[in-house]
Amino acid sequence: MKITDEYFSVKDSRFKTSFYNCLSGPKATTLIATKGKYGENVALFNSVIHIGANPPLIGLLSRPTTVTRHTFEHMIETKHWTVNHVPVSILRQAHQTSAKYEESEFVATGLTPLYKDGWQAPFVGESPLQYGCTYVNHYPIAENGTILIIGQIDTIYVAEQAINEYGEINFELLESTATVGLNNYYKVIHADRFPYAKP
Amino acid sequence: MKITDEYFSVKDSRFKTSFYNCLSGPKATTLIATKGKYGENVALFNSVIHIGANPPLIGLLSRPTTVTRHTFEHMIETKHWTVNHVPVSILRQAHQTSAKYEESEFVATGLTPLYKDGWQAPFVGESPLQYGCTYVNHYPIAENGTILIIGQIDTIYVAEQAINEYGEINFELLESTATVGLNNYYKVIHADRFPYAKP
Repeated sequence: MKITDEYFSVKDSRFKTSFYNCLSGPKATTLIATKGKYGENVALFNSVIHIGANPPLIGLLSRPTTVTRHTFEHMIETKHWTVNHVPVSILRQAHQTSAKYEESEFVATGLTPLYKDGWQAPFVGESPLQYGCTYVNHYPIAENGTILIIGQIDTIYVAEQAINEYGEINFELLESTATVGLNNYYKVIHADRFPYAKP
Repeated sequence: MKITDEYFSVKDSRFKTSFYNCLSGPKATTLIATKGKYGENVALFNSVIHIGANPPLIGLLSRPTTVTRHTFEHMIETKHWTVNHVPVSILRQAHQTSAKYEESEFVATGLTPLYKDGWQAPFVGESPLQYGCTYVNHYPIAENGTILIIGQIDTIYVAEQAINEYGEINFELLESTATVGLNNYYKVIHADRFPYAKP
């Protein structure tokens, strides 16, 4: 069916917001962890995108800073954060990090902050694919106050058996998840692999 | 294991590029369709991100314009494009659109260009979730020449039974897919739903 303004006119405003939040589809569920002036912080994001492989760069969209954003402020303050993919086994805890706690979300949810190799930001111990990032730049999005943050990928931890002969990572083997909108989580099941496409 | 430069030193350069392309994890497989000075065009993207729900905005990362990018040029020329989620049934055709064809990828792959409601860009007939976008802005990413394009979501087509009482879209029911890196595709299976998190 065609979704029109009339369709939304009989729904409440949260219905419409949820709908638009879902439209971009499934995206990797990740926990971003930082440590700075607000202490240890871990927050749920589903807006990590590949920016480039050489140099290895990752992008991340932060919500508008109209309220205090501990993750973003720590990124600017310390220049370091970690990205941690979320497996099915910690979905409930990962979702719960989005609640407004006074204490660290690590303490509140029972997720494990792990310090490795002198990296300032903690990794999430329960995550099967973790990497550290160093701040490179950020781009304010004028249209709605969101911010695209660019980081360089520095230190990566993943089980070697999840990497195939081509350098590709198997996210089904990692029991990794994808998020749709603000409330729904999906498992990913490998469907197909195609080589570089030629006419 | 920790992935270091030494790990890559015994691999070929494509291995390292593939690995970094996978790190951001699964992201919705989408076909972006346009019609402009190069004719009808349809191209595979896995970099669609939610920018905001009010107004409804979507972002899309385009590769550097060091070679001709028909999709990006059409977006700037015509201000219109469509986003079409890719179900399992057309994965092979969707992947094949990334080959360098002289003719339209619609003709080359057998995907169906569908014109609806006077929209200038075609929709992909085989897609279970399609929406039209109007150009709003674009942000050149200085670090590597990629471009973040922002579009407003205007016209949406999706089966009503895929939308639940909260306005959330069921991507398993749509048989929708996610892409990892350049070569691998995953089905998505609904795992869990959690309400708004409170401490």
